[in-house]
Amino acid sequence: MPLQVAVCGPSACTPAEAEAARTIGRLLADAGAIVICGGGPGVMEAVTEGARSHNGFVIGVRPGGDKEDAAPDLSAVIVTNLGEARNAIIVRSGDVVIVVGGSWGTLSEVALAIRGGTPVVSLGGWRMTDAAGDPVTGVVEVATPEEAVEVAVRLARP
Amino acid sequence: MPLQVAVCGPSACTPAEAEAARTIGRLLADAGAIVICGGGPGVMEAVTEGARSHNGFVIGVRPGGDKEDAAPDLSAVIVTNLGEARNAIIVRSGDVVIVVGGSWGTLSEVALAIRGGTPVVSLGGWRMTDAAGDPVTGVVEVATPEEAVEVAVRLARP
Amino acid sequence: MPLQVAVCGPSACTPAEAEAARTIGRLLADAGAIVICGGGPGVMEAVTEGARSHNGFVIGVRPGGDKEDAAPDLSAVIVTNLGEARNAIIVRSGDVVIVVGGSWGTLSEVALAIRGGTPVVSLGGWRMTDAAGDPVTGVVEVATPEEAVEVAVRLARP
Amino acid sequence: MPLQVAVCGPSACTPAEAEAARTIGRLLADAGAIVICGGGPGVMEAVTEGARSHNGFVIGVRPGGDKEDAAPDLSAVIVTNLGEARNAIIVRSGDVVIVVGGSWGTLSEVALAIRGGTPVVSLGGWRMTDAAGDPVTGVVEVATPEEAVEVAVRLARP
Repeated sequence: MPLQVAVCGPSACTPAEAEAARTIGRLLADAGAIVICGGGPGVMEAVTEGARSHNGFVIGVRPGGDKEDAAPDLSAVIVTNLGEARNAIIVRSGDVVIVVGGSWGTLSEVALAIRGGTPVVSLGGWRMTDAAGDPVTGVVEVATPEEAVEVAVRLARP
Repeated sequence: MPLQVAVCGPSACTPAEAEAARTIGRLLADAGAIVICGGGPGVMEAVTEGARSHNGFVIGVRPGGDKEDAAPDLSAVIVTNLGEARNAIIVRSGDVVIVVGGSWGTLSEVALAIRGGTPVVSLGGWRMTDAAGDPVTGVVEVATPEEAVEVAVRLARP
Repeated sequence: MPLQVAVCGPSACTPAEAEAARTIGRLLADAGAIVICGGGPGVMEAVTEGARSHNGFVIGVRPGGDKEDAAPDLSAVIVTNLGEARNAIIVRSGDVVIVVGGSWGTLSEVALAIRGGTPVVSLGGWRMTDAAGDPVTGVVEVATPEEAVEVAVRLARP
Repeated sequence: MPLQVAVCGPSACTPAEAEAARTIGRLLADAGAIVICGGGPGVMEAVTEGARSHNGFVIGVRPGGDKEDAAPDLSAVIVTNLGEARNAIIVRSGDVVIVVGGSWGTLSEVALAIRGGTPVVSLGGWRMTDAAGDPVTGVVEVATPEEAVEVAVRLARP
């Protein structure tokens, strides 16, 4: 079975984040990986565009109860009707998670992924400190889309 | 986006049910439909084999928390870790549901599908009567795998 | 911890079903059981009224994302935002399930309960036959609300 | 219907966090609030002990499929069998969330709560900064258990 990579990020993202997500999508398609994302706008739509432009397969896992509001370019849609709880499914289904940028929804995916044992690679994501002010470790930070994909493929659960 | 057809049935099925499911898988692949199933043994494994033998794409939506126990032939795996609640996702994600044979798990999928507005086509599934002994309508019964696919494609939600 | 009994039935029920559900609610409260239901109208509202009139505690497990649309009499509300998948939670949380009447949603609860190992007691619920026309066993049928509660208490998982 | 307050925190907590959680439980019970928690060890067990010692009602929302592994003192148990996705239900069911301490699971609850519109009050929880190093706002920080309860009651969704 091919590698499955979950790609997460804000639905309201910056142009730079969208461009990074598109590059990540192209590189994952080139690597033969299936992309799993939330199937919405922003980073989700951008990674879908990138992967599809290189003949990749992208599954959108939707929070709502209908296919209609999914991004048009998706290869397949999982309609969960679970609301935010669907975030747990996205990250469980990835052998590894790549995060581009930060938002509360994205943070829930980072936390659920690490809680569940899925490695997380972050490009421009939020950072955490504990009550003592010490950095919380666990997320692998990278500097470029190329590094994100390279590290993700290496860290992916077998 | 291609048609998505959920195919459900018992994990402990008869040889005749497995053969019917394989035929349905082949016909769905030929029709260009994506097959969504539970990704386990029995009818799920048989429809996967059939679809894959005709270059179809099959997504297994698993109840557990790991990819490992999924049927080997699947094209992609959604790992829900939701237990039986994942049945609701399988039938929501289908534009139509085809049922082969009967079991309590399968019955839950029939009921969740109709409750949620997804048409159900049944080949050898269970029948229901109400307290007065009258048949409960809603499921479309068919007699052959060929008829199952033909009717399913016709009834599928747009 | 007290006995937890899930009570399920149609949101559009007959006056006789509502009266039966109210009686079941009163008897469960008298038995010291916590009632778990879907928190909506019909059988759910009736069992809530009955239990609350005898100082019982009733938890409504809602499919939507808001407390607002829950039945007013509930003691507590679990807001799942999971749509129909919440039916799996209702029956998992009961040590036993009592069903009053039939509907597709109710049938999904019966099927999910038995699939997951929770005993089901049915008062006027739907009946199933397999493809050969033989009755499907597993649900315990009763004739009165009093019998429903008596049998449920006896069958409840320890 | 009474106020419902979700209390979240690590299953492996410090003695100081457990003591804070116990105090919060007592204060919530005194305020007539129903406590909703994960029903496990650590902060969850401590807030349960505190609330129950003052005759409060505590609902534990479990990730597993059995009642057996729940904390013994709970008033009622919701058995979700949803794994980590149950975190979304805990925070949806609270009119407000109080967090004591930090962990990845707790962080997922904070993120899911704010994403879903539930106010979050944090006592010793993790802090977030964005990619530019700026603090991420949204969580209300407090310094004592007393302040946590006072602020939570004030911020709770109507």
